[in-house]
Amino acid sequence: MIENIVRERVKSFKPYMPGKSKEEIMRKYNINPKDIIKLGSNENPWGCSKKIKGEILKEIKNLHQYPEPVNPVLMKELSEFTNIPMDNIIVGGDGADEIIDTMMRTFIEKGDEVIIPIPTFTQYRISALIHGANIKYGKYDKKKDFKLDVDSILNNISERTKIVFLCTPNNPTGNIIDKKDIKKILEATEALVVVDHAYIEYSKEEYDLTEWALEYDNLLTLRTFSKIFGLAGVRVGYGITNKNTIDYMMRVKPVFSLTRLSQICAIMALRDREFFKYSRENGIKSREILYNGLRKFKELKVYPSEANYLLVEIKNGMASGEFCEELLKRGIIVRDCKSFEGLEGEYIRVSIGTFEEDERFLDILKDIVN
Amino acid sequence: MIENIVRERVKSFKPYMPGKSKEEIMRKYNINPKDIIKLGSNENPWGCSKKIKGEILKEIKNLHQYPEPVNPVLMKELSEFTNIPMDNIIVGGDGADEIIDTMMRTFIEKGDEVIIPIPTFTQYRISALIHGANIKYGKYDKKKDFKLDVDSILNNISERTKIVFLCTPNNPTGNIIDKKDIKKILEATEALVVVDHAYIEYSKEEYDLTEWALEYDNLLTLRTFSKIFGLAGVRVGYGITNKNTIDYMMRVKPVFSLTRLSQICAIMALRDREFFKYSRENGIKSREILYNGLRKFKELKVYPSEANYLLVEIKNGMASGEFCEELLKRGIIVRDCKSFEGLEGEYIRVSIGTFEEDERFLDILKDIVN
Repeated sequence: MIENIVRERVKSFKPYMPGKSKEEIMRKYNINPKDIIKLGSNENPWGCSKKIKGEILKEIKNLHQYPEPVNPVLMKELSEFTNIPMDNIIVGGDGADEIIDTMMRTFIEKGDEVIIPIPTFTQYRISALIHGANIKYGKYDKKKDFKLDVDSILNNISERTKIVFLCTPNNPTGNIIDKKDIKKILEATEALVVVDHAYIEYSKEEYDLTEWALEYDNLLTLRTFSKIFGLAGVRVGYGITNKNTIDYMMRVKPVFSLTRLSQICAIMALRDREFFKYSRENGIKSREILYNGLRKFKELKVYPSEANYLLVEIKNGMASGEFCEELLKRGIIVRDCKSFEGLEGEYIRVSIGTFEEDERFLDILKDIVN
Repeated sequence: MIENIVRERVKSFKPYMPGKSKEEIMRKYNINPKDIIKLGSNENPWGCSKKIKGEILKEIKNLHQYPEPVNPVLMKELSEFTNIPMDNIIVGGDGADEIIDTMMRTFIEKGDEVIIPIPTFTQYRISALIHGANIKYGKYDKKKDFKLDVDSILNNISERTKIVFLCTPNNPTGNIIDKKDIKKILEATEALVVVDHAYIEYSKEEYDLTEWALEYDNLLTLRTFSKIFGLAGVRVGYGITNKNTIDYMMRVKPVFSLTRLSQICAIMALRDREFFKYSRENGIKSREILYNGLRKFKELKVYPSEANYLLVEIKNGMASGEFCEELLKRGIIVRDCKSFEGLEGEYIRVSIGTFEEDERFLDILKDIVN
């Protein structure tokens, strides 16, 4: 019996529930993919750089060969993009998820502690639990529009604290953490403080904390190609931290996980600054359209956001599951926030769409809310 | 200081040393990539299916979307190819490495034991150590042409044994394990017995043990797209085992790690049986050419192989490192076997090439050996 050898902890796990894919909705509701609007996974509605195509074709002749574990061309482009030396960058082949997992492999022994203020990105918790960590929960305070409660972090720091996760802009709430609060935390612990900047490109430029990783030994900033670069489908993420930490992480990181095609996609995305700029400007515009549109519904409360999604509280008595189901029937995918720990109440998360998608969504919403 | 929080075990790790890439040799020796012959990583010298191209282009418009965690089209094709129900298959996004890692996450608590007969594929050991396992070494007996010493496994089985790794055909020795020996091990333990069939397509058809996974609860067979399918660059591997084990493994497996482009590549590879057959027939022929060619060198001992590579012992007094370096200067990459634990002596591993590559390699070899 396989039960006899499975880890006790794993027996209590449930599989991760990802946002729904177009393919899934297409099959389930028999809807034409062209009529599906996906506002559920914080993706870039304008796709990815058109420059990727040609280079991918050239790479097909090399697919029988293992990828280079560290691609020097990609490292150089990333270094220029971030203004960070190559030696301070680690690139992951399963997006930022792989960087998170690699941190666990590097720092976590069973029983070590990880501090996670909630509600936030669920992957921190999942990865920590898999690697045997105990979780100490801090909080983003609902009463203060989900502002980080710094004391909820500071009071949880102990001898066994290894990692603190700060998502900023925070997923799913959309707000950012004050710089001085992050400083306070960095200075209060030897643990690695992770500043997850997956959505930083949608925030005000002066807020970007990436370069702090060169200043603080115990800071790692997390970045990704899954959001503004429109490459969630090829899974490239990266971490920026001190050289020493990179060296340790490289010892336990999966060696070949970044595929040849993903490497090409990332390189070409970095070389197409025009598409980047387009995505940023229009992404912010789309967020404003959605924010202003959603505010008009009296039975919805929408939170301000510095990311490419908006948190929405449903106040018309409908459960979030029911609400999402009604949208799905009409071809619209949003995220039911039931899966976010520490978010009591009825919430959905709506990602930015193209302007046409935003309008259609707001229109369809009238069927459900009014 | 980050040292204060790094796991003790990680401090003793060294980074994995992969086989050298063409890109690396190109840069280091300034050799035209067309003049480099790569016989170092057990890849398919004929590349991958030509049918992949068109479908990849169609997928570019979807790259901004997360991949489906389980792609039903791929599962159906894999099920037909292996003649195994979909529910018994788990697909990994970092090749078979991810399946190995997922087994560790599912079964290993710190201090649990993993049995690994050596010399063999080094990833078992690396992954086990990362997850806190203790390793008990068995052996492939050099005195008997690397036949598995079954007692070296049986004598190591204890209450804490969680996984036993049997690579067959074994990497780097090329020989297979007797079916009755595998049966003996399966029946002697409750631990998960992994039969790594990465190279099975190059063996005699009647040897394939994949279907045993439906018979034995504690068997997992490991397969890959990196070898005969010529897709090492996109990292797709899979495991076949009982449904219950799959269910546990899915709880801790990285959710999105199989990229959209890798999914397409795998599907199209499975649909191109002609290329598969071509690769199999010519791969075996290439192995024979190399085997017969290498046997003519009195100062080399070549071992018979059922895989797409040959183990070669160097008996002219040269160290394997020096030998490989001489080949590299001439544009030929083979694998220095120094990195394989338990292989004392001077060995290299030579992968099959195209017929032209085989001939050029055998020709160049004369410069070095005679």
